[in-house]
Amino acid sequence: MKKSSSLKIRLPTLVLVLEVIIIALYAVFVTYDENADAKLQNNETNPMDNSLYRDYPYFADVQVMIFVGFGCLLAFFRFYGFGGMVFNFLTATFAIQWAILMQGFFQFYYDGKIHLGVINLVNAEFACAVVLISFGAVLGKTSPVQLLVMASLEIPIFAVTEWAITKYIRINDAGGTILIHLFACYFGLGVTFVLYRPSLNDGHAKEITSYHSDILSVMGTLFLWVFWPSFNSALTFKGDDQHRAILHTFIGLSSSTITAFALSALFNKRGKLTMADIQNVTLAGGVTVGASVDMMISPVAAYALGVMGCTACFFGYKYLSPFMARRMRIQDQCGIHNLHGLTGIISATAGICAILLATEETYGPSLYQTFSHRAPPEGDPQLLELQKLIPGLNPGLGRTAQEQALYQVAAVLITIAASAAGGLLTGLVMKFPSLASPSDEDCFDDELFFDMPSDFASIELLKVYAVTAVSC
Amino acid sequence: MKKSSSLKIRLPTLVLVLEVIIIALYAVFVTYDENADAKLQNNETNPMDNSLYRDYPYFADVQVMIFVGFGCLLAFFRFYGFGGMVFNFLTATFAIQWAILMQGFFQFYYDGKIHLGVINLVNAEFACAVVLISFGAVLGKTSPVQLLVMASLEIPIFAVTEWAITKYIRINDAGGTILIHLFACYFGLGVTFVLYRPSLNDGHAKEITSYHSDILSVMGTLFLWVFWPSFNSALTFKGDDQHRAILHTFIGLSSSTITAFALSALFNKRGKLTMADIQNVTLAGGVTVGASVDMMISPVAAYALGVMGCTACFFGYKYLSPFMARRMRIQDQCGIHNLHGLTGIISATAGICAILLATEETYGPSLYQTFSHRAPPEGDPQLLELQKLIPGLNPGLGRTAQEQALYQVAAVLITIAASAAGGLLTGLVMKFPSLASPSDEDCFDDELFFDMPSDFASIELLKVYAVTAVSC
Amino acid sequence: MKKSSSLKIRLPTLVLVLEVIIIALYAVFVTYDENADAKLQNNETNPMDNSLYRDYPYFADVQVMIFVGFGCLLAFFRFYGFGGMVFNFLTATFAIQWAILMQGFFQFYYDGKIHLGVINLVNAEFACAVVLISFGAVLGKTSPVQLLVMASLEIPIFAVTEWAITKYIRINDAGGTILIHLFACYFGLGVTFVLYRPSLNDGHAKEITSYHSDILSVMGTLFLWVFWPSFNSALTFKGDDQHRAILHTFIGLSSSTITAFALSALFNKRGKLTMADIQNVTLAGGVTVGASVDMMISPVAAYALGVMGCTACFFGYKYLSPFMARRMRIQDQCGIHNLHGLTGIISATAGICAILLATEETYGPSLYQTFSHRAPPEGDPQLLELQKLIPGLNPGLGRTAQEQALYQVAAVLITIAASAAGGLLTGLVMKFPSLASPSDEDCFDDELFFDMPSDFASIELLKVYAVTAVSC
Repeated sequence: MKKSSSLKIRLPTLVLVLEVIIIALYAVFVTYDENADAKLQNNETNPMDNSLYRDYPYFADVQVMIFVGFGCLLAFFRFYGFGGMVFNFLTATFAIQWAILMQGFFQFYYDGKIHLGVINLVNAEFACAVVLISFGAVLGKTSPVQLLVMASLEIPIFAVTEWAITKYIRINDAGGTILIHLFACYFGLGVTFVLYRPSLNDGHAKEITSYHSDILSVMGTLFLWVFWPSFNSALTFKGDDQHRAILHTFIGLSSSTITAFALSALFNKRGKLTMADIQNVTLAGGVTVGASVDMMISPVAAYALGVMGCTACFFGYKYLSPFMARRMRIQDQCGIHNLHGLTGIISATAGICAILLATEETYGPSLYQTFSHRAPPEGDPQLLELQKLIPGLNPGLGRTAQEQALYQVAAVLITIAASAAGGLLTGLVMKFPSLASPSDEDCFDDELFFDMPSDFASIELLKVYAVTAVSC
Repeated sequence: MKKSSSLKIRLPTLVLVLEVIIIALYAVFVTYDENADAKLQNNETNPMDNSLYRDYPYFADVQVMIFVGFGCLLAFFRFYGFGGMVFNFLTATFAIQWAILMQGFFQFYYDGKIHLGVINLVNAEFACAVVLISFGAVLGKTSPVQLLVMASLEIPIFAVTEWAITKYIRINDAGGTILIHLFACYFGLGVTFVLYRPSLNDGHAKEITSYHSDILSVMGTLFLWVFWPSFNSALTFKGDDQHRAILHTFIGLSSSTITAFALSALFNKRGKLTMADIQNVTLAGGVTVGASVDMMISPVAAYALGVMGCTACFFGYKYLSPFMARRMRIQDQCGIHNLHGLTGIISATAGICAILLATEETYGPSLYQTFSHRAPPEGDPQLLELQKLIPGLNPGLGRTAQEQALYQVAAVLITIAASAAGGLLTGLVMKFPSLASPSDEDCFDDELFFDMPSDFASIELLKVYAVTAVSC
Repeated sequence: MKKSSSLKIRLPTLVLVLEVIIIALYAVFVTYDENADAKLQNNETNPMDNSLYRDYPYFADVQVMIFVGFGCLLAFFRFYGFGGMVFNFLTATFAIQWAILMQGFFQFYYDGKIHLGVINLVNAEFACAVVLISFGAVLGKTSPVQLLVMASLEIPIFAVTEWAITKYIRINDAGGTILIHLFACYFGLGVTFVLYRPSLNDGHAKEITSYHSDILSVMGTLFLWVFWPSFNSALTFKGDDQHRAILHTFIGLSSSTITAFALSALFNKRGKLTMADIQNVTLAGGVTVGASVDMMISPVAAYALGVMGCTACFFGYKYLSPFMARRMRIQDQCGIHNLHGLTGIISATAGICAILLATEETYGPSLYQTFSHRAPPEGDPQLLELQKLIPGLNPGLGRTAQEQALYQVAAVLITIAASAAGGLLTGLVMKFPSLASPSDEDCFDDELFFDMPSDFASIELLKVYAVTAVSC
């Protein structure tokens, strides 16, 4: 059994193939964008106007979320801390470089080249977040080879969906609720559906946390919590739109956090707090405000969204996840359906309400900037009027609020369909026998893929002591 | 005994009540400020001039300090890592949303509304820091219900004090030495005086650290250390004032750190280093430079302040804290009186000296910007002269240096009086029997409020092994 | 034996002496620079143009790398977590304040004063990074007294070398490959050569990691990884140069990371991953892109450099380090020669190639900004032409690409010679018997220099259990 999970040939071979492809594509297609190309600077360029200074702070914040935040959060298993943190590192690193190419072809391609700047990296980080969320559904049950395969398929499927929705459906989704959270969630559920392991429904001896792994995981939560406003606002319009996105995310997270504590104590048999709630449910507000994060929803609405998202997420963990595992063959290891799916649907619904309620009275002429598809189309005299009030306003599609709302609904449905189908397909590929998939017994155990320090054995030993010597 | 500390009803009830109040107040009173309101943008608005870009970087840095820095620092007890980190998370989250309202009414209220922008969040974070410092005095001896009660009382008392001093006394206190550190310290001491537990004066078996908790706590120290310059400079004038604030904080922390190492080794029986010194005393310099942090005190003075603050703090831990616990019924768990009180008094004194020594010769006309209350009052012809040199200089109160110094003294005394009285009062409320206060025996133990992972029992077991098998 | 390693007198005495010297020098020589001096602000000063806002974000990012990143990374030994993290804290803090003075005299000295701003702190952080890299060569085998002595000698030697090369050789080295990484590496090797401990060549019982120390160390790696783009770009030209520096560093790190995973699995006997590779080899790409990081090398070249640097680094750890320890008396504890030396030489070579290939066709007139020494000298009419295209272009030395390449070679050789000689000399001073050097037996053990929590003994005990009770 151990032989079949050796990474010796499989991982290097796959990495080599991917690197050769990436190098070839980089060599042929990738060049600098106008903010990074020395030749395009001239005597009217002000270096401090470089897009770098607008984008890099948000990029750096999201980097911390992806590598440190996710990394620590996923290290919550007692015997799978290396796996959680290190496979997150590997998967994220690969996903970003792959997304630079895939999104590049769809979004940053002109004159026969992908034009690269920090803004592409920000977009690639979001694509990477999609993969890492999906990863949460199969944490502890997949080899790094499988994860790389998953990333190499999920990124292009995501890039196509993103491009189709951005180009043809055209939606408002500043915080990425629809495109990031819903896509990631249903893709991950699709994968885990295919990789169903019946024997794990009865629990696994190693599916437990430790005192230190729980603390580490809370640290991950805190890093995600702190920088989530940057995540939700990185791609909004600059100025007041971004300002609101930061306020709403902060407020939503705050109300969601204290609600999570209350629910955790209320539904615990002994009136104690459960660490898994604090690690996950506290974050629900960040997703729930996403789809309307840049709109004039008012601070109290952001607060209420945080409470609602948190509540849905909490009961999802409590009732829906076990149900899905037993009845629907969907083993959602980290409960991504609760933290990203349920909250995502609430968020998308709230976004639609916000769109329907948006009026010029509330937004002023900025309405046509925040809801850019409602701006009058090219050639419409009304556009010229508006451009006097908002210099540089882009022509839109002249949609009404109702039309835009329908497009939002369409986007939700298309995203769920595309991601679930993509996830099922990807799950099938991940089942190929040569991808070093761990046996049921070896799940949630670092031993399988890592050279372990000698105290690891004694950590397992501790459990025996604890069980035999103490009646907890 | 266990029953009485169940959070099952108490915590959810309290959170529900607080949330209903907050939602009602948000709904009625909170709207966006001019930088976050879409309607107030017009064709002369440059999005990149939005206040967001001035305030958000400092906000994000302080967020890391509050959630990750404090969270890790307070997790130093061996059996209270969850409590330290997670109650900090809960208390901070609630304190900020509550402070947005309380400070909002006093500082950001006009046209019948509290106007919300990131700048309010920065102010609310400072109010939150006040609560977390006070929390340090009672760490491990209070339930989360008590902590929420403490925060809900401390925030309005702080907001009133802050408003009274800012509006009527008008002081120079860029780093918040007087308003934040002194207030937090004496409030916390007031609370802990009322919550006095005589039996804990002889030590508690669980009042110990572990190898991992000590490392975690140092990580907290490092995050606080790294971002302290942002804390001390977040609310200064922009430009050279903020630049000096960052330089002085960095220098003060640096000299304080190496001094702490020297004193730790010198006063240790076996010439070894004590982790508690490295976790706490190293930070003294950051407080000590606070009151004069934006003034032209010269780099060497910042260096000397760091050394002085560190020395006072060190001896406070060594001699004063034990004395206060035994003789004055003040059990200051984390030694906040050393790190925030003694250093705060030194800092306030240094600030007064810097005020008395400030001349136009050193500052140029900027004198009247840094010391804004010394600027000539509205209508004074000297004001017009100065406004030619510093466009946009606000009229002041025409105070002399000596007058300003006296106001500083008054502010120190009022702050100490208000905070101590507020702390005593709050302590009395926190004594209500239904707030799930832990018994003496259950202090410093996560078991009381958390569902524990199974290895927690074996961690306690380890102690037995260590004690019996090894002569350390 | 224990007596001779007591810090009781030695550490405080040394700190006192250093502080007196620093205070004296600060008092006499250090003042504010024009961005921090209140008197130099006038009615044409725009506070938001203060250099603070250009430099502080990068300063803060590098702070996280130095204190948290290095601190965690160096805490990888099972029994030396305090030492790794805390001695890093002490050494870094002292090194920066000392570098402010030493670099101050060479780079920021005019009108009889060192002029201090955040830009000096950024430079001092780089000097500090030099010391911390060298520290890696002797981790676990030196007392804090020895480390302070090392820092107090290395900083001035570095400052002189930096000054000589910057002023007389004049090179392109935006990421600090030559001046930081090569200097630090060969200085460290010089020190460890002198401090050779033959008995440690056969391994040391405590030279091991633990499950938690490995995770902590990976966290350090992640913080370094995330903020490395800020490190490599902090001192480039603003605008497109800095933009490219960030892109290249990110790409180089990415390709280096996935390559490290592949090599780790390929060369492991059982096809598993080795944590030491993930902690160190993943970072090789950040160094390798350094010397050409701001040039128009194309994204694919940055990718290839990451792969090359990683490969060299990996085989260095595997074959070269053991060879150097056994045959050359160079015990390189953390393998700095692999992560900073080999990669540095590859990087310097790549930089030279990039210089030789740079043409106006690729760079446009910006060529003379990026390669500032190739700009025409003062008085050359070509300079005036260029200044029309690039306002504010500084006159250069009129060097050809070939000339510049030769100067780069000279700088590499001089840096290696100066650092190796400096390291040998410093090593001799560090051998002085009164510097509390640990005995061979006491290496890699926190017990020697710290008051330990009681569970530390049981952590050692665990090893016995693990060895006796489990056959791993």
